[in-house]
Amino acid sequence: MKTWGFVQGTRRQSRVSNWKDPDELKEVLDLEVRRSGSSHETILQLVKQVINYSVTIGHPYFLNQLFSSVDPYGLAGQWLGDVLNPSVYTYEVAPVFTLMEETVLAAMRNILGYTGGDGIFCPGGSIANGYAINCARYHKFPQVKTKGLSSVPRLVVLTSEEAHYSIKKMASLEGIGSDNVYLVRTSANGKMDVQHLEQLVLRAIEEKAVPFMVSATAGTTVLGAFDPIDEIWEVCSKYKMWLHVDAAWGGGALMSKKHRHLLSSIEKADSVTWNPHKMLAAPQQCSTMLTKHEGLLSQCHSASAQYLFQKDKFYDTAYDTGDKHVQCGRRADVLKFWLMWKAKGSEGLEKHVDTLFDNAKYLTEAIRNREGFELVVHQPECTNVTFWYLPPSLRNSRHTPDFAEKLHKVAPLIKERMMREGTMMMTYQPHKHLPNFFRLVLQNSSLNRDDMDHIIYEIERLGRDL
Amino acid sequence: MKTWGFVQGTRRQSRVSNWKDPDELKEVLDLEVRRSGSSHETILQLVKQVINYSVTIGHPYFLNQLFSSVDPYGLAGQWLGDVLNPSVYTYEVAPVFTLMEETVLAAMRNILGYTGGDGIFCPGGSIANGYAINCARYHKFPQVKTKGLSSVPRLVVLTSEEAHYSIKKMASLEGIGSDNVYLVRTSANGKMDVQHLEQLVLRAIEEKAVPFMVSATAGTTVLGAFDPIDEIWEVCSKYKMWLHVDAAWGGGALMSKKHRHLLSSIEKADSVTWNPHKMLAAPQQCSTMLTKHEGLLSQCHSASAQYLFQKDKFYDTAYDTGDKHVQCGRRADVLKFWLMWKAKGSEGLEKHVDTLFDNAKYLTEAIRNREGFELVVHQPECTNVTFWYLPPSLRNSRHTPDFAEKLHKVAPLIKERMMREGTMMMTYQPHKHLPNFFRLVLQNSSLNRDDMDHIIYEIERLGRDL
Repeated sequence: MKTWGFVQGTRRQSRVSNWKDPDELKEVLDLEVRRSGSSHETILQLVKQVINYSVTIGHPYFLNQLFSSVDPYGLAGQWLGDVLNPSVYTYEVAPVFTLMEETVLAAMRNILGYTGGDGIFCPGGSIANGYAINCARYHKFPQVKTKGLSSVPRLVVLTSEEAHYSIKKMASLEGIGSDNVYLVRTSANGKMDVQHLEQLVLRAIEEKAVPFMVSATAGTTVLGAFDPIDEIWEVCSKYKMWLHVDAAWGGGALMSKKHRHLLSSIEKADSVTWNPHKMLAAPQQCSTMLTKHEGLLSQCHSASAQYLFQKDKFYDTAYDTGDKHVQCGRRADVLKFWLMWKAKGSEGLEKHVDTLFDNAKYLTEAIRNREGFELVVHQPECTNVTFWYLPPSLRNSRHTPDFAEKLHKVAPLIKERMMREGTMMMTYQPHKHLPNFFRLVLQNSSLNRDDMDHIIYEIERLGRDL
Repeated sequence: MKTWGFVQGTRRQSRVSNWKDPDELKEVLDLEVRRSGSSHETILQLVKQVINYSVTIGHPYFLNQLFSSVDPYGLAGQWLGDVLNPSVYTYEVAPVFTLMEETVLAAMRNILGYTGGDGIFCPGGSIANGYAINCARYHKFPQVKTKGLSSVPRLVVLTSEEAHYSIKKMASLEGIGSDNVYLVRTSANGKMDVQHLEQLVLRAIEEKAVPFMVSATAGTTVLGAFDPIDEIWEVCSKYKMWLHVDAAWGGGALMSKKHRHLLSSIEKADSVTWNPHKMLAAPQQCSTMLTKHEGLLSQCHSASAQYLFQKDKFYDTAYDTGDKHVQCGRRADVLKFWLMWKAKGSEGLEKHVDTLFDNAKYLTEAIRNREGFELVVHQPECTNVTFWYLPPSLRNSRHTPDFAEKLHKVAPLIKERMMREGTMMMTYQPHKHLPNFFRLVLQNSSLNRDDMDHIIYEIERLGRDL
């Protein structure tokens, strides 16, 4: 039976990537555009090279990021969207996708526990977090939309030191400034310290600044920690601050009866970022920003452009939802996720999520019991598994003064070998005072327990002589 | 010969859209997601409905927006990108697309006339304009990134009253405030009045505000006007302001020796927005922000997240370009455009652009000479063609007091008929003091002169009894 190349590429015995250093890759790949076009033969050759030298995100051993795999329904949805090539701003141009967005966003809010509310699809979780900051600010100071920040006191956003960097980036972009993102301390397993949160709120108030928003995280990027939403909400209520939950990564757990307790009280949040392209494995990109405040997205972002949102159209222009966004043209990212959801049902998505958590648990125990491996977080809450590998040469030198320095170099070296051989992709990073450790993240439910064992063997194979 | 459904759908005799009012469409289309999944038969049926009730953007008579058509190379590029499902932030995850972005952005800057500089792909032109505002602000006041706007005087952006609404939207989002976007008057054909620009700059200075940026437009949304870049640059130089050119729409003309004079002096701009998904007909979305300031994008936006942009990687991490963006995960929008450019060559893109302008010119003359039609802009510069259609009942009542009011209602009625019959899609809008007029925009070079004639006949057919 003939199988498409990209399906072959996702077989376990295939390479995850075919590494070339930047200079080498420039040599083999003719990327230059020219005055004259190329023949179809040349184009086909180039396409084969693009495939060959790209990382196979759909490979089971691509464990490097908070997204992976290529879901077949999701892919069909992408392809279909490409053919239709819509831009979702008005009902007349995108009737099906306007209604589809409404349906899917309502279903997601329903799962959160909101009654009513509103939502939008965004180009990624960073932008979704940016929307939340802007909505929170508008909610407190609607004049910012027209008068700008020069009309209000200094504003402060609070989030944990393990929150995603987009909170700082978006605070910079939105004129708040990254120094005005106050970073709350976290526990060893990565959760926000709510006492410290309140201290920072009081500090901001003392400074005559206005702390207007807390961004809690449900599934931090590195350790996969879930901040205590209910306790944070108490502080927000007390000081009249907007509660945002960045559940870009951990939101998927809401689909599971077994794991949704991790996000308990999320229905109290004013807004939530939730990316189906992460734990639910929809293709890149599929991100949402959901809020319980009906009408706010539109009030905060609308510009009522007459050339697009004419009010004398022959249909109900409440369906022209584009003005809720700061983007004008916008892809129908809803389609791929809708198709997945339709095909698998909520129970299919639940099974997917439960498999990920089962695999993470199995791997965690296997690492706990394996000589030379050490867990960073001993009881991980999410499907991030973080660990050090100690080659035999390091195992008896834990108490020597340069141990941490030596351990710090192990992960980068194993990563290099992994990349050059193309057998697996997994990331590493330092964290606070901790030396480099591996972090793998599971979102691909086609992996099984044998794969978890394989991951351990592969790290050992690559690193035991170090 | 068997032809795919979506190719059939782009034949002239097919419908552009199969209109249903929102409530009707909700009835026929089962969008709801449920606990249980659906059979493949059901899914296939749903997919057919999605196609059937979506607007066929690839249809020759979809003339409604600043984008249209489905380029076959572009589509192949989209499909390929979907299969590879990359996120372009680090070289290790997206080696090919990192280098491809570098190559294509450099080629685009070269066409602008920049030597060196930098650039990024953005999710749409609005966000690209937002990047430009943030870079301009950072260039003047780098402390805004960390300290926020409370550390600087009130800032003012200047743009014309016919500029795209994203300038105001992004100024609101970025904390500048839409009232601090000073709108410069335009001439009857839509060009920025440079004398008035200078008056507004002086007003801002008098008010003790800091006018830090002018956003000129190369191809306005409605009339397709090109602002006089060189004269605006003179004012910018004099008052030390950043010159941005929003060439999202008109940028495509740079590919044509015959038409690139419309953007002459664009190489003097500090930054440029240019969307290949508009005039060059790449699929949605393909937008770029280009700047002559090397290193600035990174300085302005980087957060140096340790989990992603580790500095102890084994390759040259200058290729980890993700930190130039405020987005984290990001699609490889470059691929579709690169494939088109490779296949057609710059000369193919030039021929495409020249065809659009030829058609626009032919149509303009046809309208000028046709009874009952009247041009809004008599010598359009771009491929926007704007006109009124006067049904016979109105032709002799030009001087009656309610003429404008009656004319204002004609375009919406014809549009409704057009939509309900599904024969064509073209937009209308009022503009300043002018009553509703039609605006069609050409980006699909598979249209020919017969199509231009057809457009006129079709408007007459739909509207002559009004």
